[in-house]
Order: sequence, then structure tokens, then C-alpha cells
Amino acid sequence: MPKIDISSLPVRTGSSYPGGYAAMVGDRRQVALGDPAGLTQFGVNLVTLGPGAMSSLRHWHENQDEFAMMTDGELVLVEDEGETVLHPGDCVAWPAGASNGHHLVNRTDRDATFLVVGTRTDTEVGHYSDVDMRVSIEDGVFDFTRRDGGPIED
Amino acid sequence: MPKIDISSLPVRTGSSYPGGYAAMVGDRRQVALGDPAGLTQFGVNLVTLGPGAMSSLRHWHENQDEFAMMTDGELVLVEDEGETVLHPGDCVAWPAGASNGHHLVNRTDRDATFLVVGTRTDTEVGHYSDVDMRVSIEDGVFDFTRRDGGPIED
Repeated sequence: MPKIDISSLPVRTGSSYPGGYAAMVGDRRQVALGDPAGLTQFGVNLVTLGPGAMSSLRHWHENQDEFAMMTDGELVLVEDEGETVLHPGDCVAWPAGASNGHHLVNRTDRDATFLVVGTRTDTEVGHYSDVDMRVSIEDGVFDFTRRDGGPIED
Repeated sequence: MPKIDISSLPVRTGSSYPGGYAAMVGDRRQVALGDPAGLTQFGVNLVTLGPGAMSSLRHWHENQDEFAMMTDGELVLVEDEGETVLHPGDCVAWPAGASNGHHLVNRTDRDATFLVVGTRTDTEVGHYSDVDMRVSIEDGVFDFTRRDGGPIED
């Protein structure tokens, strides 16, 4: 396969989080690299966070391994144990089922970028550490609820 | 999970290729990043190639998606269609079953490094484009043979 022409790929902004949680993510720009190249077993995204933005709400996955490498700028990794500043070349991994909520936050005044890889599975459940939310994913459809299964009002 | 302490991880050199093919790989240094961090669904390696070294013999996988991102230096991607020069930030993807043999070759006089991700599957068959060899992988054991299944003499 030829080199991926990243500049030709669509940039996805916004978030599918319900109930005001989407706004918390801020200026996040994602380019899917694996799908356009025909990969189906894991997803690969190049994610740029503007000042104040976050990769996601802090969460963990039941079934999917995740891996990230910083490629530009500076981000803060936030997990249960605390915070770690990340720079280009720094790598982090989150095994499936490890109940250690994580996200990356941009506290600088310039863009920061990372590459992230996550396994594709038919079904998935994600848990959010700091807000009363969970997500069930089936056939690519995201169903966000409260932790007790109740609805999240928009 | 905390940031991966890459400098503390073992560097693997050499190749398991039989019959003189190992020497063709040259000065290849690999650090496994995913396994030490507990990932099991895909492998992640940071690979440095010295001058003249190659990522592997040119090959393709029946069952495993592969993805690579250049992080330092310059490498040449060699595939059926020809050659492409890669620089830091350039990304390539090889979907499972796409019979387009590929490898990365260092034709410069300095080290070059890339990150590579590949799905873990219980079994796998790999095909080599430029030499009379195939590999069957089962439970982590690599069985290299000629394309017709015959042995490769050391």
C-alpha cells in the first residue's frame, strides 16, 4: 500500500457525548488513518488537541487494548494515580479491562498531537471515571447511559 | 498505566530467519512496547534500522493488519509497485490478506526509526516476495519453509 496521504483525509471534530459532555472535550481534531487504508482489526487515529482540549472524558475499556504515542507538543496524562506530562516520543498503553480511567489534556497554549491505536471488537463497554456515564457499543452504534442504565437528558 | 519507560526495555537484535536470510536484515534493533505494558491484542514495536538494514525481508500477512509510522530519519518503503521515501510522520498501512509484499530499507548513513503495530492472531501465514520462503506461525512458534513446504537448509 502506498504512503497514507494524511493531508487528503477528512478531519473529524466534535464529540458524540450526550448531555453537555461533548462541550467538555473542546477543540479536538481527529484524522482516521487505518480505515481509509483498509485496516479493520484495529483503529488508528491522529488526534490534535487545541489549548484546553482533551482526548476524551477519562475512561477505560472492558474489551479493547489501547496504545498512544505523542508526536508533537505537550499533553498531560491523567489517571487514577495522578498526572504525567508527555512529550513527543512518549508512549502509553492501556490494556483491555484495566479499570484505570485515562485521558490526555492539553494545558499549553499551542496544539499537541498524538497517534492512538485501539482494537476493533464487535461489542464494547466503556466506563467513565469522573462523570456518571457508561457506553455500550454494538455494531458501531454508541449507546451512552448513566451508570445505572438510565437516560442522559440532553 | 504510567508512561512506558522505553529506555528500561530490552533491545532485541538479530533475526529468526533460517539459512542465511537472517544476515540480510542487518543492524535492526527492536524494542517491544506493548507486551511489557500488558497489551495482548496487538503488538507494538519501536524499530531502529542502522545504515543498510531492513525491517524484514519483503513479505505480506494473510491474517494480520499492520501499520507503521516513521519517527526519525529516512527509510525507503519497497512494495510491488516500486519505492517510496518516508520521513518522520509518514504513515503506511498493510491490510491483512493484501498480497503486496513490503519492507522498509535504510539507504542512508544514519539510524532511522519507526513505530509498527500488528494484530495478534492465534495462527498466521506470511509470504515472502523476493525469496523462496513462507512462514507458519502457531502459538508463537515460527516455522519457516520453502514455498512448497520443503525445508530450508541452514
